[in-house]
Amino acid sequence: MSRLKTIEWSSKKDVCVLIDQTQLPLKLIYKNIKTIEEMFDAIKVLKVRGAPAIGIAGAFGVYLGIRNISNQTKTSEFVSILNKKADYLASSRPTAVNLFWAINRVMIKAKTLADLNLSIPEIKKGLLEEALKILYEDKRMCRKIGENGLPLLKKIKAILTHCNAGGLATSELGTALAPIYVAAEQGRLIHVFADETRPLLQGARITAFELQKAGIPVTVICDNMAATVMARGLVDAVIVGADRIAANGDTANKIGTYGVAVLAKTHNIPFYVAAPASTFDLSIKSGKEIPIEERNSEEITCGFGKQTAPYGIKVFNPAFDVTPAKYISAFITDRGVIAPPFLQNLKKAFLK
Amino acid sequence: MSRLKTIEWSSKKDVCVLIDQTQLPLKLIYKNIKTIEEMFDAIKVLKVRGAPAIGIAGAFGVYLGIRNISNQTKTSEFVSILNKKADYLASSRPTAVNLFWAINRVMIKAKTLADLNLSIPEIKKGLLEEALKILYEDKRMCRKIGENGLPLLKKIKAILTHCNAGGLATSELGTALAPIYVAAEQGRLIHVFADETRPLLQGARITAFELQKAGIPVTVICDNMAATVMARGLVDAVIVGADRIAANGDTANKIGTYGVAVLAKTHNIPFYVAAPASTFDLSIKSGKEIPIEERNSEEITCGFGKQTAPYGIKVFNPAFDVTPAKYISAFITDRGVIAPPFLQNLKKAFLK
Repeated sequence: MSRLKTIEWSSKKDVCVLIDQTQLPLKLIYKNIKTIEEMFDAIKVLKVRGAPAIGIAGAFGVYLGIRNISNQTKTSEFVSILNKKADYLASSRPTAVNLFWAINRVMIKAKTLADLNLSIPEIKKGLLEEALKILYEDKRMCRKIGENGLPLLKKIKAILTHCNAGGLATSELGTALAPIYVAAEQGRLIHVFADETRPLLQGARITAFELQKAGIPVTVICDNMAATVMARGLVDAVIVGADRIAANGDTANKIGTYGVAVLAKTHNIPFYVAAPASTFDLSIKSGKEIPIEERNSEEITCGFGKQTAPYGIKVFNPAFDVTPAKYISAFITDRGVIAPPFLQNLKKAFLK
Repeated sequence: MSRLKTIEWSSKKDVCVLIDQTQLPLKLIYKNIKTIEEMFDAIKVLKVRGAPAIGIAGAFGVYLGIRNISNQTKTSEFVSILNKKADYLASSRPTAVNLFWAINRVMIKAKTLADLNLSIPEIKKGLLEEALKILYEDKRMCRKIGENGLPLLKKIKAILTHCNAGGLATSELGTALAPIYVAAEQGRLIHVFADETRPLLQGARITAFELQKAGIPVTVICDNMAATVMARGLVDAVIVGADRIAANGDTANKIGTYGVAVLAKTHNIPFYVAAPASTFDLSIKSGKEIPIEERNSEEITCGFGKQTAPYGIKVFNPAFDVTPAKYISAFITDRGVIAPPFLQNLKKAFLK
């Protein structure tokens, strides 16, 4: 099974190597990212995408921004440059919470080392180590989700997924697709039906690509075909990722997820949400408190370089929807599988 | 309110005038169709589409094919040429049941007149009159559906529709959109949410266009947004068209219809199917007997002139799905509104 390397650090070349996802699904091109400016561009134009992968990119990006500062620089000046570089990189995608989180984490590490009066080379080294730690933690988190989800898939021959919560959104195995990759490692191929996921087609472009590369059987469908796929008994379960999960289990994810959840319930098919602990936001009581971004109409009317709706037509383009907790069979997390009742069980899992 | 003239007969120019729908939604171009060859092409490349509109086109097409035959031709030879022209035109779209039906109808008319020893000019005139009759019957049928559906929409502010069952699929008012047009004539504008309807985007291209032209408020959404539109209370009813309806009420229609029906039930929103009597096929017991065409994968992977999925990817592309009768609140037909229980009430309406 060939595994895609979404984002890695090459210590040999001393560069960040990542897949240019703007070229997918037609070309698989690995880019060497050598400067913070190149990383800014990679994040901005979505060469790298998916919250966890963007976080990792941000951490490496900060390192690329400071590694060539002279080792003779005064520590206070070094920290001041570091702050500027971090602010610059954070502005590449102003809504990416994970980007800020990861940048902040390597910054804190560097500042702590600076406060301890370590030398500039030592601070640089410590910052890179923290970035690598973020990368390895992500790999571990994905694998945990994969292993924890595996028992749920014992009798499952085919699953349906929506959008891309796969290896190309993280460092390696993904979240929703992790149990499928782990099953494949053990020699069991689960067939995946991938919703194409309008308007931006992450399912057709990204999920289909990475599963095809991994040798896992995958069938692309239009979003409106999920109902008929279920009615025909072609899938036994649904697994999706999540953007934000409230204390009661209500889950915000890519637009269309909620519809799939309703259909799964109607067809008595289990509906699983796979996500790391960091996606659970227990400070939010329910899905009602999750703001839903509306994106511009061209994504729908002109999504493929060609106008496919009348000029001046009104469009409604919410980027996410909220799936009420009652439609969710269980959460597959790096801390284990969490079953209902969610209000109690999420607290137990994440507030101890 | 400006009404589009999908397909008409111009007695002044002695030609069929139709909207070239391949130019929609960006250009509104009326074409004069002067020969049977031009009509063959118009049907083949989908300049004209929608079962009723194609039928009308076929009827006029046969007339265009024989009108220039010399009036001195022997009747038997005339009929022989007529047969060849009809066969030729029928091959323009080999699965269009309505096309064969309409061609057959004008043929029978012509042959009946030939059997009565009428002159060639009289046969030609009779054939054109039969084609015009098909056109006017279609207009009447649409208007009836519109009027019959109107009382159901008394308290409805916004509806959701899927695909295009509008004026551009018929001669004028359409089926699913007919009640909305009739309401607009009476000064009441009902807001329409139009599913874009992947893979071929009939909703975004055709439904949005004709409603916009008619001055009816319309919002285009991706198919996977219907669930969130319902959850937010933005629509009070769903109306769709139908391709074929079985004796028990099971309804085959454009792929995605079934999913919308499930969502409507979950959100307690009435789900109406609008269709003329000719769509009800009481010889079929249930939806299980309706064959579902699978179309080629390029419609999904390369639907906008650009490859949007990996090369060689497997695709599932059913053109239709079947909505079980239990999801349908009522049928809106040219013979009235038909409520459940459908097995009895459809028989009563169509077998008397």
